[in-house]
Amino acid sequence: MDLKQYITIVDNWPKEGIKFKDITTLMDNGEAFHYATDQIVEYAREKEIDLIVGPEARGFIIGCPVAYALGIGFAPVRKEGKLPRETIKAEYGKEYGKDLLTIHKDAIKPGQRVLITDDLLATGGTIQATIELVEKLGGVVAGIAFLIELTYLNGREKIDNYDLLSLMKY
Amino acid sequence: MDLKQYITIVDNWPKEGIKFKDITTLMDNGEAFHYATDQIVEYAREKEIDLIVGPEARGFIIGCPVAYALGIGFAPVRKEGKLPRETIKAEYGKEYGKDLLTIHKDAIKPGQRVLITDDLLATGGTIQATIELVEKLGGVVAGIAFLIELTYLNGREKIDNYDLLSLMKY
Repeated sequence: MDLKQYITIVDNWPKEGIKFKDITTLMDNGEAFHYATDQIVEYAREKEIDLIVGPEARGFIIGCPVAYALGIGFAPVRKEGKLPRETIKAEYGKEYGKDLLTIHKDAIKPGQRVLITDDLLATGGTIQATIELVEKLGGVVAGIAFLIELTYLNGREKIDNYDLLSLMKY
Repeated sequence: MDLKQYITIVDNWPKEGIKFKDITTLMDNGEAFHYATDQIVEYAREKEIDLIVGPEARGFIIGCPVAYALGIGFAPVRKEGKLPRETIKAEYGKEYGKDLLTIHKDAIKPGQRVLITDDLLATGGTIQATIELVEKLGGVVAGIAFLIELTYLNGREKIDNYDLLSLMKY
């Protein structure tokens, strides 16, 4: 299945000059959403994953069905102030200044093999912060899966010690 | 399976006097997450659902695995400014003032039977706004599913024309 046919390119969003890759038209199509998820499920099986970790909110869309399919858990990474219990934090660079991502301190058992999921690999900042959180808790980042990789932003270079799957490349 | 044993009650969060029901400990447990999802999948099958719609971000956690299991699509409802293409909007009351939820204008085909998913039914404001969005686009709200219902907040009364499933009641 050519998944790219389900992606809508939105010109000049969120700002002038950006060609945004909208995944909602893929998710809206049951067959395409199921097929894309299954590619990641298969990858997770190969990597013997114990737990899925995904940053909000689109990382939930990709990761939760994979967790369900494998009968394993899902741990959310959220912006500061969104998780109710004790968390650890990691900084990530945004266009203007820094922001914080958090995960519950008890979300990962040491040694668990973790798959990180997100919709898009752009510059890689969110994913670097997510890796930091997983490793601080003793998790092993056994794979990272994206629907889309923007190869011209070279995000892959920042995480080239890790195994990476991207279903579509632009 | 007694799902309540996987919920963590967090005292005084997000503010004094609230006993927050934290679902992350349920999601972190693969067996419990799978079981809970399957209850909603079964309900969706009975209701002959064509499409899942869920408000961000916890509605994604519940709804996306259900969509995957049934091989149907998922359409996200997001806060204003988060969806890249033409949207319609609905207001919902927050503690202080109003906020807007949006959905892409082409997310639902008229006549599609929609299941709305979210983690928690509290006062019902978010769900009322989500129903409004679905119906404006010609969708039929054939069911609404929650992990948790806070019965003492009477959210159910606001949506009593609709079929409702809640897996845990407090």
